Amino acid sequence: MKIVVINKLLTDTHKEQIRRAAGEIGGSVLFVDSEDDIPGSFEDCEVIYGFGLKNAGRNRNLKWLSVPSAGVDYLLKPGVFANEACMITNSSGSYGVTIAEHIVAVSLLMMRRLDFTYAESLRGRWSSPQPQRSLKDSRILVLGTGDIGCCFARRARAFEPESITGVCRSGKCADKAFDRVEDTGSLDDLLPFADLLVMSLPDTPDTRNILSRARIALLPPDAYVVNVGRGSAIDEDALAESLNEGRLAGAALDVFKNEPLPSDSILWNTKNLLITPHVAGNLTLEHTLNVNVDMFCRNLLRFGRGMPLNNLIDRNKGY
Amino acid sequence: MKIVVINKLLTDTHKEQIRRAAGEIGGSVLFVDSEDDIPGSFEDCEVIYGFGLKNAGRNRNLKWLSVPSAGVDYLLKPGVFANEACMITNSSGSYGVTIAEHIVAVSLLMMRRLDFTYAESLRGRWSSPQPQRSLKDSRILVLGTGDIGCCFARRARAFEPESITGVCRSGKCADKAFDRVEDTGSLDDLLPFADLLVMSLPDTPDTRNILSRARIALLPPDAYVVNVGRGSAIDEDALAESLNEGRLAGAALDVFKNEPLPSDSILWNTKNLLITPHVAGNLTLEHTLNVNVDMFCRNLLRFGRGMPLNNLIDRNKGY
Repeated sequence: MKIVVINKLLTDTHKEQIRRAAGEIGGSVLFVDSEDDIPGSFEDCEVIYGFGLKNAGRNRNLKWLSVPSAGVDYLLKPGVFANEACMITNSSGSYGVTIAEHIVAVSLLMMRRLDFTYAESLRGRWSSPQPQRSLKDSRILVLGTGDIGCCFARRARAFEPESITGVCRSGKCADKAFDRVEDTGSLDDLLPFADLLVMSLPDTPDTRNILSRARIALLPPDAYVVNVGRGSAIDEDALAESLNEGRLAGAALDVFKNEPLPSDSILWNTKNLLITPHVAGNLTLEHTLNVNVDMFCRNLLRFGRGMPLNNLIDRNKGY
Repeated sequence: MKIVVINKLLTDTHKEQIRRAAGEIGGSVLFVDSEDDIPGSFEDCEVIYGFGLKNAGRNRNLKWLSVPSAGVDYLLKPGVFANEACMITNSSGSYGVTIAEHIVAVSLLMMRRLDFTYAESLRGRWSSPQPQRSLKDSRILVLGTGDIGCCFARRARAFEPESITGVCRSGKCADKAFDRVEDTGSLDDLLPFADLLVMSLPDTPDTRNILSRARIALLPPDAYVVNVGRGSAIDEDALAESLNEGRLAGAALDVFKNEPLPSDSILWNTKNLLITPHVAGNLTLEHTLNVNVDMFCRNLLRFGRGMPLNNLIDRNKGY
């Protein structure tokens, strides 16, 4: 069984761990930094762990693509796979810790006006105190109660918020980090009471534009919005207007409809908008990469033994 | 009994609350925005709540100065009080929440390289992923286990660190937020194992220069330092050298030996140093101000009834 691993951040320890797992199921592993480095002898591999889209588009032998990302929307368009029966797994579960830290960081950054203070400090200026807000006693609304939403809620809990409400499609989530969990039908009733709206949703037909112009208008003018899921979830023009007109206190976006964000995007010059370049869940954090590799190795053993894969994408649901 | 309250941030609700407390003990309250606004008729007041240093220097009738700050070092120098028996209380206990949020924010900002990302974003640049660090599995050393240190430790706990070790003079702290608490004699043994050193100490003869050049050298080169106590606790020149030479990963200072930080200070141009202008514990946060006023009102009733004051400063200990 030929296995290709595409990831230039892997250490020797990671590679050894993957080789060992492959050995147990009689697989042979090739490590490359980039998909373009795959030699002809591995073009017909059965397994790819990494962003192997070009190979997937022509390799009819590919049975399983394991992507290190959580979002897989880009893989579900027609024509991506030469073998339409190819299984896709994502790495949802490895990003909760790092993205939760990102959400806490940017929320506090905005609420405490550290963005302003830091910008002034870069200019060598000792700035005067700004009005501050706090996670303490705030009402937090978390849209998307997967690994990321739960990891964030568990951390946010320590800051003594008034409430943490989760919202997901089913309205059900076993995690005790939320005070309550509602289904997406309740969103319009919940938005007017959010001090902080955290969005961590996959891109699916149901989530596209879920924070529409009408829903942005339902948020209180002193609310903050953080999006770490997919840019498609927000009406970016309406959000920019609300921010520029002071109908929202601030927003921190790590994801955008178009990435990299075009240099002429109005978002770059939008008031109280913190832009980060899709780095909330970066594999440059050792912990994330370790969990990611662990998950692949466990799944590789399952694959080799003919067991159902963990994190298998349901093409109909889109995640 | 004449009571002067100096604080331009107070709302009508705060003023009403203070008037009610004063009424219960037969006191009469004057509210002013600045000490310079105190009329002659209140120059001989018995109580000041605020930064009333000028009056304290000439008012022999002043029996109690209640300052809204936590640090009181500036009040303990000779000649500050015309009445040397004047009691001083601080507002330690009202800053834990806000300063803990500051510490989490700046720690994550540095560890996740959001300082770099944000600076690039201000220039309209979609920057490339940076190496990241995490609070997860980190070894946190908290120097000073008062209200601020404990509030921080309780929040940090939610990020799943490897350990949180408290250090204080006595080596004892009842708060369960710490895995263990050691006395300051153990500091040299603990510093080499700190990923994040958080300092929240009052200015006393014992704490001055506690993070000396020799101790800075004991920290691992990938350690971060956060100081929210007093600037006097750190050898600033040695810290700047360590940062510039890459012998420390980063530092976030909110307090400095000289404040405002002089425009020609080397610190402004020190590598990986995040400067904030003494804003970690700002009364611009509503929660902080509310607790601060609550504490004063409770103490005012105690004062009027001849009971021992809470938060009374021990001039020998310096806090």
